[in-house]
Amino acid sequence: MKIARDIPVREVEENYINIQPIQAAGRLTGEAMKALIAYGDGYSTCDQCRKPFRLDKITKPAIADFHGDLAAFVNMDEARVTPGARRAFQATCLSLAEKGDIILVSALAHYTEFLAVENARAIVKEIPLNKDNIVTGEAVAQKIEDVTREQGKKLALVMLDHFDYSFGNEHDIAGAAKAAHQYDVPILYNGAYTVGIKPVDGKALGVDFVVGSGHKSMASPAPSGVLATTSEYADKVLRTTQMIGDVTGRKFGIKEVEMLGCTLMGANILAMMASFPAVKKRINDWDEYVAKSNVVTDALLSIPGNKSLSEYPRKHTLTKVDTTGSFDTIAKKHKRRGFFFSDELKQRGIVGEFAGATRTWKLNTYGLTWNQTGYVADSFKEIAEKYGLL
Amino acid sequence: MKIARDIPVREVEENYINIQPIQAAGRLTGEAMKALIAYGDGYSTCDQCRKPFRLDKITKPAIADFHGDLAAFVNMDEARVTPGARRAFQATCLSLAEKGDIILVSALAHYTEFLAVENARAIVKEIPLNKDNIVTGEAVAQKIEDVTREQGKKLALVMLDHFDYSFGNEHDIAGAAKAAHQYDVPILYNGAYTVGIKPVDGKALGVDFVVGSGHKSMASPAPSGVLATTSEYADKVLRTTQMIGDVTGRKFGIKEVEMLGCTLMGANILAMMASFPAVKKRINDWDEYVAKSNVVTDALLSIPGNKSLSEYPRKHTLTKVDTTGSFDTIAKKHKRRGFFFSDELKQRGIVGEFAGATRTWKLNTYGLTWNQTGYVADSFKEIAEKYGLL
Repeated sequence: MKIARDIPVREVEENYINIQPIQAAGRLTGEAMKALIAYGDGYSTCDQCRKPFRLDKITKPAIADFHGDLAAFVNMDEARVTPGARRAFQATCLSLAEKGDIILVSALAHYTEFLAVENARAIVKEIPLNKDNIVTGEAVAQKIEDVTREQGKKLALVMLDHFDYSFGNEHDIAGAAKAAHQYDVPILYNGAYTVGIKPVDGKALGVDFVVGSGHKSMASPAPSGVLATTSEYADKVLRTTQMIGDVTGRKFGIKEVEMLGCTLMGANILAMMASFPAVKKRINDWDEYVAKSNVVTDALLSIPGNKSLSEYPRKHTLTKVDTTGSFDTIAKKHKRRGFFFSDELKQRGIVGEFAGATRTWKLNTYGLTWNQTGYVADSFKEIAEKYGLL
Repeated sequence: MKIARDIPVREVEENYINIQPIQAAGRLTGEAMKALIAYGDGYSTCDQCRKPFRLDKITKPAIADFHGDLAAFVNMDEARVTPGARRAFQATCLSLAEKGDIILVSALAHYTEFLAVENARAIVKEIPLNKDNIVTGEAVAQKIEDVTREQGKKLALVMLDHFDYSFGNEHDIAGAAKAAHQYDVPILYNGAYTVGIKPVDGKALGVDFVVGSGHKSMASPAPSGVLATTSEYADKVLRTTQMIGDVTGRKFGIKEVEMLGCTLMGANILAMMASFPAVKKRINDWDEYVAKSNVVTDALLSIPGNKSLSEYPRKHTLTKVDTTGSFDTIAKKHKRRGFFFSDELKQRGIVGEFAGATRTWKLNTYGLTWNQTGYVADSFKEIAEKYGLL
């Protein structure tokens, strides 16, 4: 079935259990889908846009209230929606760093953090991991100390992922915030893998910015994200335009420079809003989803030769496993090579692992029911049994 | 009917003729609506993402081909999709301007161009209009001459709207491009009001960048847009990351700095793609839409006291009119004030004028059938007759 030439209908979520690492917590709610249909037209949000003409001030539909709700959701003072978490990193880096300034990121930082630093013509430095692949507060303090001494100037920003994209390991945000503030350096909390699936309290963590990803963890379409900050930093990162036309004398009111005015018109923000009640509710089920993640991980670890590259027991639903000692030994001899494993999973109605990969690969069990959790766990063991690994 | 608390179902396009200035050419095609439904999940585009892991390289669905098609569509060498035209201005300004550099825009430039300049910490200067509210090539040359002499350095960029957001007047892009290049300054063509509704040939115009807006003129959801450029400037504005992790030695392949990696995942790009065949076709009907625009404008001008603030005859479907001498005289005495006019239009099934405005206001007749065109024209005259203005 096709929508148009070259555009097949996508039926992944309808027909399969999807354990794809980045898709799991972004899939839409039914309400978000309805919002897409009703507000699909680009400027659909603008029907009732009145002075001062800014997206986050629109009251029909209740976009203004949603902005307040979003700030409260992560316990910060101000929030804006952005076209993805990466645009929030960009806005923060461009606001706080001048050319040549230094920004610290984790040795497990997502590539978009690197690009945001590069975009601001700043210099990136990585915070080393400990032996368990965790960023500690001490490591942050030490790196700030080292870099400050080496460069002879204060750092512009620390960006740190609460859970990283690679292992889904938990890093010491509160410790990092304490360390950063001891050196008077602001810190950005990258919650791409937390905001929308587990409770996040920015003030309690002591961070200056909380960034979330709508399409990664808030059951929202792409691109969508959130940038939340304190009153202190709102003045800087959400500063309004100061431009004046030299010929016309034009000014542009309260348009925010880093947001480039309005950010997410149309379906994307309305779908975020439509999913929000479900998102607010589901964060309370986080412990249950982590428990399910451990059930699946345990099943994989019950197969001889398998290892969890992620910290174990799991504290997140995203996990990186090493099956070089099990499934990869079969792949080496199988005519379909690594694809034998994808074939076996797909026959069982499971998709989302990186097709063909049988050495190190990632899975995300977020959103699975208990029945699905048991089924996925059993499926891995079944495949192992079939090939004499178990 | 509600989607959720505070989210009513939007039925503007279903129930009314919509002459809203910015919505007309952004409304989705049926195919785009289907794409939204099938690809609504955030990372739906990423099912078949393989090395080198970049949105514009994905072949299933045919996103890579679409990028080539987009470049050809505006006759440039390279194209990328962006979260709105404003993000294309931003990428270009950040690439070409350093702090304190000067960028020229039109005295009718959209505010997002100002913000993009401010975001790059550059300085904006406006090109004056002639007496007909048109930017001429001579005015561009003169302003470059003046600013270069005053500042003692070469300008970083000229950005010019082919048709401006305020009057929908046509500005001399080809003349401006010639002038800019005489001074060795690159020029960006802002086609937010052209790309997707009329043929645009970047090479013939002699511009270095062509920017389009998906949600404004390409029947696509927000945010979406296109940045097209020449091979010469692609190296600069689409440069790939040079960052290397100091601890890990990590590099990030061919990720593009100004795009921040991938730009429009999910429904937004798929809907752009789904609308594209219809968009490619409809640009050939531009003259007909302009003719319809003149029919409606003529009807308004047949009412004594009315003026077209836009150039006349119209060359675009977006028009700014002055009805201070007609409808506003009624508003002054009517108990509903200016809203009497909105009421009268709405009773006739027409929406999209700025509710309550009876002095200067804008309308966009893009997309109307001939029947609808006659009906809208007659409706204005009917209202005038009812209140004794005609």
